[in-house]
Amino acid sequence: MSLIDSLIKSNNTKIVMLVIDGLGGLPDHINGKTELEQAATPHLDKLANEGVTGQIVPIQLGVTPGSGPAHLALFGYDRFCISIGRGILEAYGVGIQVGTKDVAIRGNFCTVDKNGIIIDRRAGRVSDEIAIPLVQLLGEIKISGLDIDIRHVNQYRFAMVLRGEGLSADINDTDPQHTGVCALNPEARSSRANKTASLVQEWISEAGKVLREQENANMVTLRGFSHNPCLDTFSKRYQLSAYCVAAYPMYRGIARLVGMEIIQFDGVTPSEQFHIVEKTMNTNEYDFAFVHFKQTDSSGEDGDYVAKVRAIEAVDQAIPRLMQAQPDVMVVTGDHSTPSRMQSHSWHPVPVLLWAPDTVREDHINQFGERQCLSGGLGTIEAKDLMSLILAHSGRLRKYGA
Amino acid sequence: MSLIDSLIKSNNTKIVMLVIDGLGGLPDHINGKTELEQAATPHLDKLANEGVTGQIVPIQLGVTPGSGPAHLALFGYDRFCISIGRGILEAYGVGIQVGTKDVAIRGNFCTVDKNGIIIDRRAGRVSDEIAIPLVQLLGEIKISGLDIDIRHVNQYRFAMVLRGEGLSADINDTDPQHTGVCALNPEARSSRANKTASLVQEWISEAGKVLREQENANMVTLRGFSHNPCLDTFSKRYQLSAYCVAAYPMYRGIARLVGMEIIQFDGVTPSEQFHIVEKTMNTNEYDFAFVHFKQTDSSGEDGDYVAKVRAIEAVDQAIPRLMQAQPDVMVVTGDHSTPSRMQSHSWHPVPVLLWAPDTVREDHINQFGERQCLSGGLGTIEAKDLMSLILAHSGRLRKYGA
Repeated sequence: MSLIDSLIKSNNTKIVMLVIDGLGGLPDHINGKTELEQAATPHLDKLANEGVTGQIVPIQLGVTPGSGPAHLALFGYDRFCISIGRGILEAYGVGIQVGTKDVAIRGNFCTVDKNGIIIDRRAGRVSDEIAIPLVQLLGEIKISGLDIDIRHVNQYRFAMVLRGEGLSADINDTDPQHTGVCALNPEARSSRANKTASLVQEWISEAGKVLREQENANMVTLRGFSHNPCLDTFSKRYQLSAYCVAAYPMYRGIARLVGMEIIQFDGVTPSEQFHIVEKTMNTNEYDFAFVHFKQTDSSGEDGDYVAKVRAIEAVDQAIPRLMQAQPDVMVVTGDHSTPSRMQSHSWHPVPVLLWAPDTVREDHINQFGERQCLSGGLGTIEAKDLMSLILAHSGRLRKYGA
Repeated sequence: MSLIDSLIKSNNTKIVMLVIDGLGGLPDHINGKTELEQAATPHLDKLANEGVTGQIVPIQLGVTPGSGPAHLALFGYDRFCISIGRGILEAYGVGIQVGTKDVAIRGNFCTVDKNGIIIDRRAGRVSDEIAIPLVQLLGEIKISGLDIDIRHVNQYRFAMVLRGEGLSADINDTDPQHTGVCALNPEARSSRANKTASLVQEWISEAGKVLREQENANMVTLRGFSHNPCLDTFSKRYQLSAYCVAAYPMYRGIARLVGMEIIQFDGVTPSEQFHIVEKTMNTNEYDFAFVHFKQTDSSGEDGDYVAKVRAIEAVDQAIPRLMQAQPDVMVVTGDHSTPSRMQSHSWHPVPVLLWAPDTVREDHINQFGERQCLSGGLGTIEAKDLMSLILAHSGRLRKYGA
């Protein structure tokens, strides 16, 4: 048990953590400003002005994180204790229960030619309308010794969970990561996975037969074989009753991993999303909201500087709505940087603001931007330590020692 | 294996690490500026302006490092895994092979009076002309059970490597570190070193006989008994093909320890040195250059503020030559501080600049100086994490996790 965990005390304070995915950026070569610095963000600037700012290092210097480790760090789960596979994130994201001995897998539909060579790793980004019934067909495959739960995620992606005796997730991906070659066999990385690998091979052969006549989605690849890491929940570790308002399944999966409730919502705008946060918080059933906003990351990955600026501005305009959840502590940051110049996740630190009117030592930073936050009162901290500050500012940590 | 090591991918980017030995300083009492702040450094300032700056803590707060640990930290080798003796650094520096069971030792000529009392620990800084034939004479000493390789380093310094059965380096220095007392006996710190200690004692007696008639160099002291720590090389850890351009043997020794190739050069000016860096990089056989510049440290140790300023300016003037090596990533820093006011190494942080046009988040620092770099975008980091940033900026780290 960590020092922080040992100091937890209960309280009735309310906390909102807003994660703007891929928030950090790099300066545009023309105007010299990052996406966040360029965006008009009067409401975030006001929070920065009233709160304290800084920057977080997602995992460690130089390391570009995937969404799983980056969010778990924000939630205070130390990276060295956890190895979360993509399979478990996808399975949890669509709500499949995963027992401690089950194996979770992420699947992709792909397109192969008559020789089995992959010509499209995403099956032409097949539509949900076509993919959903295909997943149902795959669900009818029976393999002796396996109980299989398979569900559609979106487009070409599905999640599956294998249950049975003596299963192991120590199996290589079958996705070769590029076209022009055959899918790989599911290969056991250790002898204890031999049995599972051969059952999976059998299932893949059956899947090939089921899909044979399809135009695009005529084969599958499997990735991220993983077990449930059985993390302690927010409730157990922090005495927090937490919920998640996220549009994308994977982030719901991460939230479920740490025991958050998933609040369904159908809206698309930040304002609609934040309205759900507010409504849920005001039921008084919960005291911690994890709010995930995705479009900033997607625009960054598309290399679209202007779209990322607009996505940030859209979040900013809806901030007053989010504040109607009346948090005692509000944190705004990103899980990692996704500079549109790089069109990918990156290792650069991410600006953070912590707003807690009763307890922050204000730092006179009045604009929420990468270079402004550099001189903020939080300094440069590791993402995994952010929860400790949140817990402190929400009056949920006892004094250490006499 | 560290997280960083597990994320390495290959690339064809080129990296230059320029280590200006003892770079960090303290403000002069008269003008209030450190040596680096005082020096005219237009080229380093330009790199700082285009890049990102910060300061590094060599080992940990308050710790004054020797050159060995300080450089290994810069190379990303965690201090807790390694204990490098001075003997191994000297032996590697002059190119003696050291096997895993051999014992490497640094030797000094000294002057003793007729009672064996040390009156000069450096034998009047005896010249190479006198010392080289004396080392040859010492090389003729035969001790049963020992195969001895001994070579001159410079002035009063030599390196020796013992080979044989059941040798141990767990032996105290014989150098008492001050004059007016006899040299110490080589004392075994554990019973497994008893045999080696007595063989070394025997050798020292023979050396005393050989040198008896010399005016200055009439005795020896031995220090830094050490084994080869067998570090993983740059090639193995980072997939980097690295070379070293350093004038001083010890820095070549450190570079060899981590598997760098040593490029010979006879020049004395930074411009000549940097020309070799450029020529070597342009062969395309290498992708990492470790460039070591010594005079800053020597001037600092001499307490010569003006000489240290001039040494920094000499490096600066040659920077355009170094940039002709066309690095994708260029790092300039020191291994530690050597303030001329203190006339010694110190624990103070060292300014660092990282130049990598494609990926840095510029921080508007436009002068390379201790106090300027304090507000730089890298913040204050540990030296051992610098390689992670270099690897990230050179596109040599994969994403961590799903």
